[in-house]
Amino acid sequence: MQILQTLKTEFEQFLNLQIPEREPQNLYAPLKYVLSNGGKRIRPLLSLLSAKSFKTDYQKALPAAAAIETFHNFTLIHDDIMDKAFIRRGKPTVHMKWNENLAILSGDTMLVWAYKMLEHYDGEAYKKLSSLLNQTAIEVCEGQQMDMDFENRTLVSLDEYLEMIRLKTAVLLGTALEFGAIIANTSKQNRNNINQFGVFIGMAFQIQDDYLDVYAEVEKFGKQNGGDILDRKKTFLYINALNTANETDKETLLNLFADNQISDNKLLLKTIEIFNKYKVPDYTKKQIEAYTNKAMNYLEKIDFSEKEKTFWKQFAFQLMHREK
Amino acid sequence: MQILQTLKTEFEQFLNLQIPEREPQNLYAPLKYVLSNGGKRIRPLLSLLSAKSFKTDYQKALPAAAAIETFHNFTLIHDDIMDKAFIRRGKPTVHMKWNENLAILSGDTMLVWAYKMLEHYDGEAYKKLSSLLNQTAIEVCEGQQMDMDFENRTLVSLDEYLEMIRLKTAVLLGTALEFGAIIANTSKQNRNNINQFGVFIGMAFQIQDDYLDVYAEVEKFGKQNGGDILDRKKTFLYINALNTANETDKETLLNLFADNQISDNKLLLKTIEIFNKYKVPDYTKKQIEAYTNKAMNYLEKIDFSEKEKTFWKQFAFQLMHREK
Repeated sequence: MQILQTLKTEFEQFLNLQIPEREPQNLYAPLKYVLSNGGKRIRPLLSLLSAKSFKTDYQKALPAAAAIETFHNFTLIHDDIMDKAFIRRGKPTVHMKWNENLAILSGDTMLVWAYKMLEHYDGEAYKKLSSLLNQTAIEVCEGQQMDMDFENRTLVSLDEYLEMIRLKTAVLLGTALEFGAIIANTSKQNRNNINQFGVFIGMAFQIQDDYLDVYAEVEKFGKQNGGDILDRKKTFLYINALNTANETDKETLLNLFADNQISDNKLLLKTIEIFNKYKVPDYTKKQIEAYTNKAMNYLEKIDFSEKEKTFWKQFAFQLMHREK
Repeated sequence: MQILQTLKTEFEQFLNLQIPEREPQNLYAPLKYVLSNGGKRIRPLLSLLSAKSFKTDYQKALPAAAAIETFHNFTLIHDDIMDKAFIRRGKPTVHMKWNENLAILSGDTMLVWAYKMLEHYDGEAYKKLSSLLNQTAIEVCEGQQMDMDFENRTLVSLDEYLEMIRLKTAVLLGTALEFGAIIANTSKQNRNNINQFGVFIGMAFQIQDDYLDVYAEVEKFGKQNGGDILDRKKTFLYINALNTANETDKETLLNLFADNQISDNKLLLKTIEIFNKYKVPDYTKKQIEAYTNKAMNYLEKIDFSEKEKTFWKQFAFQLMHREK
């Protein structure tokens, strides 16, 4: 899809011009570092493509796309502090390159800049965009808190897990799409439907992320990765296995995750053995399909031409069939 | 001033109703803890009183006042992490009571709630209020960064110091007042003048804070406090002393602040000796007066009745003549 590369380039040119040239330098250096450090730019592309599909000049959506991307990068800076992450996109995280105080404060500043970029819009559009960002920002924080809470719990239900990924990841994709719809001034129904299309694609994508972490390499190279298992993450696969295993296997799985002495290899083998015994990969694939179908149902309801619908189906297909 | 107590009570009742009753509980407990933990509520009172002085029902300004107070408390939570502060308003800071991750994330959430509270307003007022909050939030972050930068520098100029306190503290007071003016839909001139009135009162207040830290108790009880000196803070007094002292005394002062072995008592005595030798307290008092006068000049320009002007002069007088 050539259009994606064209829009990405144009977006990055626009974004670069938005990066504030202000003092104090220490505060703004991390902003520049993070915003010019690439990434797939999926969220801003969603805003631009959505505006375009609703028959509006996609360039009108550039500031909103920049707001979404700036907001997303704010969450990464603060999440990386909380998760004690060292590396992001192949480079040191902000708190590692500088320090935690700077990562907190420049993250705060980025959140405010995200709001500030919406000042490009007037009247009703401005209020709709900024209210939607308020709601989404709160939900993203709630999702991050749930994720942190889960680390300290032994058991998490599948419903809780799904709500966590919806809040932490999926709602922002829906919002990115709805931003385009708001700028195109389309109907409330269209706004809602494209938002939900994004949310369900986001959930399918996130569950697939859990799936690929264990099974991607199996299909391709015949060897496992399983970083999530080694990190004892309560993924969709793990929770589903706990839900379906008999008491003995459930206890084995809980003990495996509680065992800090076990070798990586043994932990992987034993965990995946239980996953496979209970057909966790099959169930997971079915759930990914179910969420994708839900997304498609929302897509169908949008006032798009068949050509547009085909485009979005292809886009979703590409997103879902990427390599990890 | 009975009106202040009445408005404070009404504001706190309103604010309590705004505190979100949402999950996850861990995220919202610090919000409730901080927002219901009192404080002088100066900023929200400024918004309410400003709306009232511009002949608008002050109750219309309650959501904006809540936004200002929520924003202010967000800055306190994050600043307390950065400053490694243990106690705030006589109780453990959020990162001490819970942990740093929670303080970061619940702080982020509070910043978003501050914006969300402005959704009570429509149309032009909404955009004016939220744009002003954007600008102020960025300035407050810049001020905090300057303050942190100063800790790692030996020399700071008086201009830099004044810019730091303007950004970190004073602009928010101006914004609180302008919020009331925006809600009252008064002229651009009135908005600007009351904002600047607040900024200059804020600067006078902050310089006085530095002054009182050393000299408050002297006047009252004949003994010094000087916590800022013991913390080696680059206050207005310290910077002014460095600027006016001869080379020998300048070096003595720099050495005193660089000496980690010196007794508290000796550090205080020697530092204050230099302050006094160069008439730092006199100069500081003159500067406080100069900033107060600048504030009064802006007050004079506002379309207020004489009665209103008298009220604001009294209010500023009370603020400036508080005990530390």
